[in-house]
Amino acid sequence: MDKNRLEAFTDGVMAIIITIMVLDLKVPHNPTWQSYADAYPIFLSYALSFLFVGLNWSSHHHLFHKASKVNNKILWVNMFGLFWLSLVPFVTASMGENSFSSITVTIYAAILTFSIISYLLLVSQLCKLHGATSEFSTTFRGLYKSYISIALNLAAAAISFFGWPKLAFLLLALTSLMWFIPNHRFENNDIGNEA
Amino acid sequence: MDKNRLEAFTDGVMAIIITIMVLDLKVPHNPTWQSYADAYPIFLSYALSFLFVGLNWSSHHHLFHKASKVNNKILWVNMFGLFWLSLVPFVTASMGENSFSSITVTIYAAILTFSIISYLLLVSQLCKLHGATSEFSTTFRGLYKSYISIALNLAAAAISFFGWPKLAFLLLALTSLMWFIPNHRFENNDIGNEA
Amino acid sequence: MDKNRLEAFTDGVMAIIITIMVLDLKVPHNPTWQSYADAYPIFLSYALSFLFVGLNWSSHHHLFHKASKVNNKILWVNMFGLFWLSLVPFVTASMGENSFSSITVTIYAAILTFSIISYLLLVSQLCKLHGATSEFSTTFRGLYKSYISIALNLAAAAISFFGWPKLAFLLLALTSLMWFIPNHRFENNDIGNEA
Amino acid sequence: MDKNRLEAFTDGVMAIIITIMVLDLKVPHNPTWQSYADAYPIFLSYALSFLFVGLNWSSHHHLFHKASKVNNKILWVNMFGLFWLSLVPFVTASMGENSFSSITVTIYAAILTFSIISYLLLVSQLCKLHGATSEFSTTFRGLYKSYISIALNLAAAAISFFGWPKLAFLLLALTSLMWFIPNHRFENNDIGNEA
Repeated sequence: MDKNRLEAFTDGVMAIIITIMVLDLKVPHNPTWQSYADAYPIFLSYALSFLFVGLNWSSHHHLFHKASKVNNKILWVNMFGLFWLSLVPFVTASMGENSFSSITVTIYAAILTFSIISYLLLVSQLCKLHGATSEFSTTFRGLYKSYISIALNLAAAAISFFGWPKLAFLLLALTSLMWFIPNHRFENNDIGNEA
Repeated sequence: MDKNRLEAFTDGVMAIIITIMVLDLKVPHNPTWQSYADAYPIFLSYALSFLFVGLNWSSHHHLFHKASKVNNKILWVNMFGLFWLSLVPFVTASMGENSFSSITVTIYAAILTFSIISYLLLVSQLCKLHGATSEFSTTFRGLYKSYISIALNLAAAAISFFGWPKLAFLLLALTSLMWFIPNHRFENNDIGNEA
Repeated sequence: MDKNRLEAFTDGVMAIIITIMVLDLKVPHNPTWQSYADAYPIFLSYALSFLFVGLNWSSHHHLFHKASKVNNKILWVNMFGLFWLSLVPFVTASMGENSFSSITVTIYAAILTFSIISYLLLVSQLCKLHGATSEFSTTFRGLYKSYISIALNLAAAAISFFGWPKLAFLLLALTSLMWFIPNHRFENNDIGNEA
Repeated sequence: MDKNRLEAFTDGVMAIIITIMVLDLKVPHNPTWQSYADAYPIFLSYALSFLFVGLNWSSHHHLFHKASKVNNKILWVNMFGLFWLSLVPFVTASMGENSFSSITVTIYAAILTFSIISYLLLVSQLCKLHGATSEFSTTFRGLYKSYISIALNLAAAAISFFGWPKLAFLLLALTSLMWFIPNHRFENNDIGNEA
């Protein structure tokens, strides 16, 4: 199995996901400053999803930088994660164009949750392959931030479902920003990833 | 001839194919849970095509990992396969938005069939280049799963043409899932490819 | 200057160009076999452009495989070629959706011509950098096929302009297929490129 | 930290940005030569943005070619730059389809400015990491062209805001072309980047 080509394919897919979201920003006709201001849910949704995909890429980068081998099961767990991530442009545009309607924010939070769960599965398979006592496993086990993210994203899904979608969006944004709190286990200037 | 650049180009094209399909998921206006449920043909079509392109990438990855050389004919057989694969987003969206109408499922099955036939041509050219007694050829010859896939996909095309498109779609999905049955010739944890 | 990164960027751009053309294939509503048959200009345009971009990638691949160095001027001549190539999805869709109307075929032929002229500029700059007596220059100078292609594409533009756009399209298709005539100077199994 | 994968991801994102802009060129129906001529704001906007993204890629390429290391902060400053660049297709199409309306040109100039500021931040972080006396820092410090670009782009934003958007667009175009004035500090045939 070829780790480099798995990285290259994942880089490609993530680069495309993070970039094609812009195609869902509809070109305005005879725009005014007010029309741009009114479209704030679209731009906020775009910015959060850009950050979320960027965090995923950063985490994936750190993970595979330390990994020394992969196998076929890891290839497919990785593909499973890319599947959920590939839906981000769709759920982002749905949320933005429907101005944070309750259903669309709930679904957005759910897709983000599935994506983080897939990441946990990927780490777990990589730890299993490298062995419980390997340097890889001691570096990456105990994914506190991932567990907290899943809990907060599920909470956001529930908060949106029961009628406070804008509060839910705020919670989702804070959850993503949480990843920038430095983690002293990995390296001093470590932001945006979990060791 | 440069094997790495052929891999990189193929990775790029497959990464784009698997990702731009999401642009065919139309953003709903004032969506309800019912409207998402009614759109199930669109989501099922998306999921199957994601799996199909993923399987193609995985197979291509295994093939070129073992290959030690390529030539110009292989470059163009590879391009021919990418051509059929490049149509997958179009036939997927046609099938989903027309709720598995008979014609669209028939065409979808046909495009998948052409794609697998191209893969067989690619393997055959690679075997010819490496020599009949090479390790490459002994590993990859006898593509039972590919022949079965072609037969089942053609059967699905016929079933859809004669009026049972949903049954045909189910058969196409099962055919793709068949690739996850482990193949003991290649490696123990081998899923999603054929040795 | 880093040859590999120039190749990688060019691969990426060409992979995207060849793949996003599919987004211009409009999903039909309640399609019949007749509606697919009537859309033949769209599919033929797509197929020819896929072939043309594929030929460009193949030629670029051969060129840079032999090249041992690049400079900033070559970077920008390459970018100039990518500019014309990047317009191919637009002129392809314009030609297909307007059923080979005279103006759209003329413009299509013009963009293809600019693309080949850029390729000639690229070869000429690379020959200059490697020196007139280098192995690179002796392999790639005398681009008979490129000159013939430019002449035939300009002829196609004129034929379309004066009222025979379908004949012009046929000529453009034959011009692309001409590149598959083996070239004995480069290697025996050489197709789709010019040595 | 892995410099190569950061380059590969950035290459991917920039390649996609520069290419998907073509999807905003709307396919004309029953076009005449006049209709193409009337669409000149769309084609000029496309050409300038292609040039701008090309300049960004070229500068990034030179920067990371000289850089010997990266860290997590640089990863995120780079991501911040890609964020502004990712908005280029949207602001380009907005400007083109609204025929250089005052608001859209102002916003276009602003996004270009943010993109150049991000580039300055990236250079500054890389200089800090390599040390003030490193070869990297002596090569890249003193980004006169970048400061002039920011000033001219801000001037263009103001000129457009106060009612001369076409003049502003001309200024933006000249600012980009300024980067082709050779810079003798870097290499003799240096165009399109800043040393």
